[in-house]
Amino acid sequence: MQNERSNLQVLLARHPDGVATAADFTTRETSLPEPGEGELLIESHYVGLDAALRLIVRDSDEFLFRVRPGDRVHGSIAGRVIQSNHPDWHVGDFVSGSLGVQRYALSDGSGLERCDTTQAPLSAWLGGFGVSGLTAYFALFDVCRPQPGQTVLITGAAGAVGTMAGQFAKMAGARVIGTAGDDDKCRWLVEELGYDVAINYRHAGWFERLREAAPERLDVVFDNTGGDVMNQSLKLIGMHGTVLLCGSTSQYTEEAMQGPSNYIWLGTMRARLQGFVVFDYAARYAEARARMAGWIRDGRLKLPETAVEGDISEFGAVFEQLYRGVNRGKMLLKLPAAV
Amino acid sequence: MQNERSNLQVLLARHPDGVATAADFTTRETSLPEPGEGELLIESHYVGLDAALRLIVRDSDEFLFRVRPGDRVHGSIAGRVIQSNHPDWHVGDFVSGSLGVQRYALSDGSGLERCDTTQAPLSAWLGGFGVSGLTAYFALFDVCRPQPGQTVLITGAAGAVGTMAGQFAKMAGARVIGTAGDDDKCRWLVEELGYDVAINYRHAGWFERLREAAPERLDVVFDNTGGDVMNQSLKLIGMHGTVLLCGSTSQYTEEAMQGPSNYIWLGTMRARLQGFVVFDYAARYAEARARMAGWIRDGRLKLPETAVEGDISEFGAVFEQLYRGVNRGKMLLKLPAAV
Repeated sequence: MQNERSNLQVLLARHPDGVATAADFTTRETSLPEPGEGELLIESHYVGLDAALRLIVRDSDEFLFRVRPGDRVHGSIAGRVIQSNHPDWHVGDFVSGSLGVQRYALSDGSGLERCDTTQAPLSAWLGGFGVSGLTAYFALFDVCRPQPGQTVLITGAAGAVGTMAGQFAKMAGARVIGTAGDDDKCRWLVEELGYDVAINYRHAGWFERLREAAPERLDVVFDNTGGDVMNQSLKLIGMHGTVLLCGSTSQYTEEAMQGPSNYIWLGTMRARLQGFVVFDYAARYAEARARMAGWIRDGRLKLPETAVEGDISEFGAVFEQLYRGVNRGKMLLKLPAAV
Repeated sequence: MQNERSNLQVLLARHPDGVATAADFTTRETSLPEPGEGELLIESHYVGLDAALRLIVRDSDEFLFRVRPGDRVHGSIAGRVIQSNHPDWHVGDFVSGSLGVQRYALSDGSGLERCDTTQAPLSAWLGGFGVSGLTAYFALFDVCRPQPGQTVLITGAAGAVGTMAGQFAKMAGARVIGTAGDDDKCRWLVEELGYDVAINYRHAGWFERLREAAPERLDVVFDNTGGDVMNQSLKLIGMHGTVLLCGSTSQYTEEAMQGPSNYIWLGTMRARLQGFVVFDYAARYAEARARMAGWIRDGRLKLPETAVEGDISEFGAVFEQLYRGVNRGKMLLKLPAAV
């Protein structure tokens, strides 16, 4: 690949309206960057598709970080060091980081993560073994803390975080219910990931099914979607329950976000809606990964992913597929350089 | 009063539409009950007006408890034992309890509270020294736990709970901001109750004033009102902050409740929206009251109340005044029997 003397970067073309489509993104060809002293050059093998990107490409200053038309798209990649003038990084090292959506990335090593592919495959470092899996791990074990026999609902159960959170909740001994948007995914959640019950929230009567599946109410709602599913679940929250606010994917495409009108049930039930950001746990990532690697070796933990093969310019189309619900587990763009 | 051989009870006449008015309530005259073995008869001196009553008189089965047209109105009274066939209660004892809105109440002693009027006046046992004050005490000191120098926002600051919570937050060493619905109340909060800042949320620009008053963001939001004030305050919640869900008075009159659309800020800030019910702390009421009685003696704690004098049939009119925001501190109906 060193012969190819150009880089390709993905830019935001315009603020999306509703679900983002391929046309909301564009590419820019630049010359291949040359690493200076203390720098290294990374060839991307995988791009991680993150639902929260939809939030930061909104035409709004309301959030702390935003991407404007013409800006390079924020995103995480995993790849291989192909040139290095940095003492700590060597050609051939596998790395990942929030380096923007591009074929090649220059780095000074800051924020870069070394990927030990004996623990988990490179792609998983963007998904179940990356931020998505760590989010599920710390949110579930440190904040939600379900006890054996308790009932946990996971919304967006087939997504990058949900697939991991459900497996962790089973390990904690909980009864685990998931919601997803199609019947095949629901079957897969039960048959492949060990969910006790999976409910397609697009069917009328889904809430009755949920109520029947949780006769003792819900001790934990691990919420990845927000919207109607989360709001209705509040009616079933149990005494001193926890609603873990992990993501609100259903709301990122909406012009005006919907608040959970049933929040008053949190009062009655002495429950809490708890915000969570995984970066607070950065000092404990290695500890979590060591445990997860053990579970992977023992066959107790799966790292679901849906990798679409294509060039970096396919990013927009794959992002659209994420919002169409194509993925099971982490949605990835697998680039030609991936081995 | 024993000559008056009848009782008067307040009933719900119809489900209110919007703010409840006097016409939504009616009265029923019954014969004066005669206490049987193990029973006692209480003469009401004060009726406590509780905003949450508006929620349970809704035409909805959605909540755990409801009052239908023709039912006696649920409510707390404080009064004096005038007959007793119960070994633990004697004529002349001051008592309070959730005995329904009526001139005389029969009781077997269950749920009845003995009011030590050397600790606080009888009326205060329905307000600042009763459930409202205990709610503020445990929610503030046990759940919100503001640290010296932190910033606390109290919505509905001039209400029964808000007036107490603000004083407790000052004792904890916090900087205290309150919201209320008129300028006189705001002045009173600052001059009489020691609030650092009080903001009239009916003025345009109230949110800018709040933002300016909380340059370090809000560590605690003690929410008594819900609605727009609470929702906007979420934009200012601080890292690991607590939004204490104490009441949602602005929503009780609404047909369709509004959820807080800015709840996504809880995620970013690792904050929580925490439900709370004071009854969980029943075993510690005496401990709290002993501390509060000391502060009252020392002049450090006030027990604000607005008592409207009238017969029990005035209940509906006084309840309407509560929702018109007439009260400072606990709203009470003071009956002719009160001494």
